[in-house]
Amino acid sequence: MKEKITIIKVGGKIVEETESLNSLLGRFADIAGNKMLIHGGGRSATRIAGELGIESRMVDGRRITDEAMLRVVTMVYGGLVNKNIVAGLQAHGVNALGITGADCNIIKAHKRPAGNVDYGFVGDVDEVNGKMLAKLLREGIVPIVAPLTHDGMGNMLNTNADTMAAETAKALAQEFEVTLIYCFELPGVMRNPDKPESLIKEINHESYAALLADGTVSGGMIPKIDNAFNAIDNGVAKVIITKADAIDGTQGTHIIA
Amino acid sequence: MKEKITIIKVGGKIVEETESLNSLLGRFADIAGNKMLIHGGGRSATRIAGELGIESRMVDGRRITDEAMLRVVTMVYGGLVNKNIVAGLQAHGVNALGITGADCNIIKAHKRPAGNVDYGFVGDVDEVNGKMLAKLLREGIVPIVAPLTHDGMGNMLNTNADTMAAETAKALAQEFEVTLIYCFELPGVMRNPDKPESLIKEINHESYAALLADGTVSGGMIPKIDNAFNAIDNGVAKVIITKADAIDGTQGTHIIA
Repeated sequence: MKEKITIIKVGGKIVEETESLNSLLGRFADIAGNKMLIHGGGRSATRIAGELGIESRMVDGRRITDEAMLRVVTMVYGGLVNKNIVAGLQAHGVNALGITGADCNIIKAHKRPAGNVDYGFVGDVDEVNGKMLAKLLREGIVPIVAPLTHDGMGNMLNTNADTMAAETAKALAQEFEVTLIYCFELPGVMRNPDKPESLIKEINHESYAALLADGTVSGGMIPKIDNAFNAIDNGVAKVIITKADAIDGTQGTHIIA
Repeated sequence: MKEKITIIKVGGKIVEETESLNSLLGRFADIAGNKMLIHGGGRSATRIAGELGIESRMVDGRRITDEAMLRVVTMVYGGLVNKNIVAGLQAHGVNALGITGADCNIIKAHKRPAGNVDYGFVGDVDEVNGKMLAKLLREGIVPIVAPLTHDGMGNMLNTNADTMAAETAKALAQEFEVTLIYCFELPGVMRNPDKPESLIKEINHESYAALLADGTVSGGMIPKIDNAFNAIDNGVAKVIITKADAIDGTQGTHIIA
């Protein structure tokens, strides 16, 4: 039987506010066994970029990353947000190690070619070094991953954290029984975000098609669920979309192959 | 016989300018066997703090680190400077892992008590986790250490890189034959900085006392050499102060117990 691992992806908002961060850290510390965390940080990047006089430009919710913005996200995601989480987890007795995809060559990517939009220094993931991650995990280390990769030629690349989480889960699925939990501000995928009882407890390919067709799922939820299916269709044991205060794996929307 | 390791400490200037950084990365990549790098980044911190409207205040060459400045050094040292080095070394085929003292609890410190000067969130090193570092090194990992530690209670602390290098070298000396190389802009300790031939090839305790007495060694060189003696007096095999383009261990000023 394979060892288990829980991979938690949390959005920027949760890790950027002291109260929600502290509450997350406690719950994350309580997860037994192998675990890792992949985090965002977009709000901090936008705020600090603004203070530096650098304008944040977004297309379809994705950040245009020119050279100046790459410096901002490298320092904000890889430094400020990541080390704040690491120091907080260490205080909870978690052997946290903050990394980006460049560290130990964990996640290699290539710069997205300019199409209709030139996103700049944005990475599309090529390869997750599951072997190296597994080595770290087996030393009792808990990786805390910032949403940055590298191209192997010396450049950092701004990379979508949801995608990194899915690709990492897939790579680790070769050696572990992986539970991947996407946390965001709602209890899961909702028929009506204002009504908690409208939580959709399970989504499979068939019901997903219907939810897309009738417009229940739209906008930024589409790439999130696509990432979830990418994971569940490629060896990941369990994929859940849920609220950050419900990361024990029992609640939220379960994505079914 | 103990395995060998080379620990290189480089100042901010070298890693903050593209040309000197690239040249250092190539030379660092060429070092055979176990190795690690500890870097500064003060110039970038001062520049970015300035762009954010935060004034840098120094006392005796040490940065006063209030909460706003702690955020700056955490993102600049732990993010911008560190990940730039890591991505660059990966391009050279070095399995670099960028860390701070908080990561894997590698270096724990305490906030320096306010005396005549309140340095704020500045850490004095209590303990280096040599066992964890040795584990990483034995996985073929090359740690790249930013000048930050943590207090174990959730706070990052700005920490002097020369001191971190000496304390790390001492901790690793229990398991490795350690060579510690301090790099700066001169060929070593000089009788006359303008005359390369005035390089002092060896300093022991006795000659150090004389160099202090006649004023040859003064200012910022004193804590550097004190750190060097702290290392050589506590089990480190070789300690050298040299220029960043001479890190093969043959040149510079050798500190002798």
